[in-house]
Amino acid sequence: MTRTLAIGCAARPWARNGTMTSAHRPRLLRATPPLPYLGFCFPVPRSPFPLSQKAMPSLLYAQSGGVTAVINATASAVIQAARSHRVPVLAAKNGILGALREELIDTTSLPASTAKALAHTPGGAFGSCRYKLKSLDADRAKYERLLAVLREHDVRWFLYNGGNDSADTALKVSQLAAEFDYPLACIGVPKTVDNDLAVTDACPGFGSAAKYTAVSVREAALDVAAMADTSTKVFVYEAMGRHAGWLAAAAGLAGRTPDEAPHLILFPERAYDEADFMSRVRAVVERVGHCVVVASEGIRTADGTFVADAGGGKDAFGHTQLGGVASHLAGRVKDVLGYKVHWALPDYLQRSARHIASETDLRQAQAVGRKAVEYAMKGMNAVMPVIVRLRDRPYRWTVKPAPLTDIANVEKTMPAGFIREDGHGITEAARRYLEPLVRGEAPPPYGRDGLPRYVTVPRQCIDKRLPEWDG
Amino acid sequence: MTRTLAIGCAARPWARNGTMTSAHRPRLLRATPPLPYLGFCFPVPRSPFPLSQKAMPSLLYAQSGGVTAVINATASAVIQAARSHRVPVLAAKNGILGALREELIDTTSLPASTAKALAHTPGGAFGSCRYKLKSLDADRAKYERLLAVLREHDVRWFLYNGGNDSADTALKVSQLAAEFDYPLACIGVPKTVDNDLAVTDACPGFGSAAKYTAVSVREAALDVAAMADTSTKVFVYEAMGRHAGWLAAAAGLAGRTPDEAPHLILFPERAYDEADFMSRVRAVVERVGHCVVVASEGIRTADGTFVADAGGGKDAFGHTQLGGVASHLAGRVKDVLGYKVHWALPDYLQRSARHIASETDLRQAQAVGRKAVEYAMKGMNAVMPVIVRLRDRPYRWTVKPAPLTDIANVEKTMPAGFIREDGHGITEAARRYLEPLVRGEAPPPYGRDGLPRYVTVPRQCIDKRLPEWDG
Repeated sequence: MTRTLAIGCAARPWARNGTMTSAHRPRLLRATPPLPYLGFCFPVPRSPFPLSQKAMPSLLYAQSGGVTAVINATASAVIQAARSHRVPVLAAKNGILGALREELIDTTSLPASTAKALAHTPGGAFGSCRYKLKSLDADRAKYERLLAVLREHDVRWFLYNGGNDSADTALKVSQLAAEFDYPLACIGVPKTVDNDLAVTDACPGFGSAAKYTAVSVREAALDVAAMADTSTKVFVYEAMGRHAGWLAAAAGLAGRTPDEAPHLILFPERAYDEADFMSRVRAVVERVGHCVVVASEGIRTADGTFVADAGGGKDAFGHTQLGGVASHLAGRVKDVLGYKVHWALPDYLQRSARHIASETDLRQAQAVGRKAVEYAMKGMNAVMPVIVRLRDRPYRWTVKPAPLTDIANVEKTMPAGFIREDGHGITEAARRYLEPLVRGEAPPPYGRDGLPRYVTVPRQCIDKRLPEWDG
Repeated sequence: MTRTLAIGCAARPWARNGTMTSAHRPRLLRATPPLPYLGFCFPVPRSPFPLSQKAMPSLLYAQSGGVTAVINATASAVIQAARSHRVPVLAAKNGILGALREELIDTTSLPASTAKALAHTPGGAFGSCRYKLKSLDADRAKYERLLAVLREHDVRWFLYNGGNDSADTALKVSQLAAEFDYPLACIGVPKTVDNDLAVTDACPGFGSAAKYTAVSVREAALDVAAMADTSTKVFVYEAMGRHAGWLAAAAGLAGRTPDEAPHLILFPERAYDEADFMSRVRAVVERVGHCVVVASEGIRTADGTFVADAGGGKDAFGHTQLGGVASHLAGRVKDVLGYKVHWALPDYLQRSARHIASETDLRQAQAVGRKAVEYAMKGMNAVMPVIVRLRDRPYRWTVKPAPLTDIANVEKTMPAGFIREDGHGITEAARRYLEPLVRGEAPPPYGRDGLPRYVTVPRQCIDKRLPEWDG
């Protein structure tokens, strides 16, 4: 079966949002059947042209949402794998917005050494964004603009590196492309320090943030233990995790016995009760001499109020006071129990700490990048390469494709069996799950200046061919 | 010249604070001239007894003030060097308080592997404290109690590992011992992340905290740069440094050009002016797209008010709000400029991050420990091993003794030539000074659990022989 899709006909969605111009010369696309949402379909023929010539289909790679210590390792793997297939990679500047704005970075000019060095560089080399596309109905014009850009640059493979929302966007783009018979393979590539993606055993980015958390808590706890006799008795560490306590749980790896830090973990999965918390803190201080608390930023009281919201607000001068959970808890411990307190808020440090990345995490981030390209080259569509755990001890894993329909907009919560019965620590099951994810070191190379040799990628974009996006 | 000091006679200071008991049997000390405050004097004869026998003079080692990532490396070097001299080391539990309370840890039972592993363990293995002894007149009873404990345990060498205050205490103890003809060599051993000790080129502990700071700022800045288009535009990192901006200056190593982070550094050496700061932040955001600010915790307005004190206070419920400089600045940027902000407060993480220790710093921490023992064995008194910089490039350094009188209670400030003319960055001179201090990596060994293999030392004390200290 062959069909032709004439641009400029009724099936010319990109004309609808007013962006259709003479730049859109009607032309014939390669005749193909529409792509199903999942599974093997048309293997897009590999281009016979060398990389330097642009007259070949491209792969578009975009980063989405909060970046991680290893998302660039995925980017690096994508670029290198695509090069081995002689497929040019365009990278969207600042995530999906770059695709909508037609701000595309041509990675074919990146030296091989830079493409490789991305594997040890944190942040998001091409820029990421927080920008959620809604349903196809609600945001149809945007989806169609996206498709127009992809089509204009002959993008046949779209790799979207992000979390739940991005999986959903990739799925919808694949649906729209199918609707218009545009031959596009959409692959979601997993990434999030929140570890809340469904189906995959773990999310690239989480393992490194988890390792940072466990190491930092272990180190700070040694400091507190040394000084507690005359100085700080209670130390509060605030971990990311608005809805799920994955990173707070990772802190639990820092100690094994009840007397080892962290002595108390506050999970968003458990209601925060101040009186109970204070009595536990006091008991730990009396038993151990000090108390290290790890709190998820998202803990809430039984009525659903975020504890972090208790602080903050405005001060006497009407100035915004930016609070946080750790600051609030520390203040309350000081008020109620009278102990000297300190607290830490690592914020972005925890998700960008490439210097203490987990080797497992790095390898998985690279593996999903490579597999995403492999799936794309095989013509698979609307899938995500996910980590499948084969064994805990010794830890064995592999990567398999999973349909985006099972992943999009689904939030994986932490199993109840991972939180200790008293609600303030982790179980052996949690430890068995978490430990392999933080295992192994993968330090970046360091320069003579004593700092990691991270690379930056010029974010210069190729010439636009479409009118400005007015979205 | 020989003299005898009969315990129980008029020169029996430890009797004055009511702690004199039958445990103090009058006995003859080795007749010696009083120790001068500096220089070679009596080489205390090395004991012919093996380590297992306690009938030999001891060396007392104590940690003081805020601990660091490498103070245990100094402890490790002290213990190992003393062992090579067959000198038993007692460690005061929780610093000078342990010496006053007669809470002494016998390190001779520490396995060699543990003594060695201390070199890669952060915190203070034997405990430290914030406890300042005042002048000899004001705190005479305490000094005499200290001398009583030293004498009771036949301590002939006292190594005090700390900052200015500790150097002063070591000096005063040496003076009192001389006054009572007690043969004691007092050696100050440098340590402080504040880098504010006089004479020494750098303070062990600073280089590792500096490396942590520069690496963390470089990493977080990559994160901010990736997200700034739709998310955080201004990121504020709070560095330790109440009086001197050494650690904030170290953050300056993260970037070289005005467009590289950190874009603005706020030093305690310069008055903070909000209007000026806001205009600079806006200019950077407009030029670069985002702005990374590093602020010393100790910055003050022109009238001397700490900026950190502007936040905090009590909230509407009368609860203590613990603020900080970063939280305050971020709140003001949000209010005044309307940018999305984030901030980080690494707190103890920055001084305990042994996992990212500087190799230079580690080697210097070990060198001052070894040298302190060497000086003690040579009978030197009231000195401190200090780092002497021989060259910047290539960096060469050595350790020499300096008199405690030149160091005690003197605070080294940051040279004015280290701060850029505009007051918000570092100069080439600062870079030349700082760079070698953060150079080199010295990662700890990691376990199968993916975490650094740090050791803890049992803090069990030997039997007390003196009455309880009632200080």
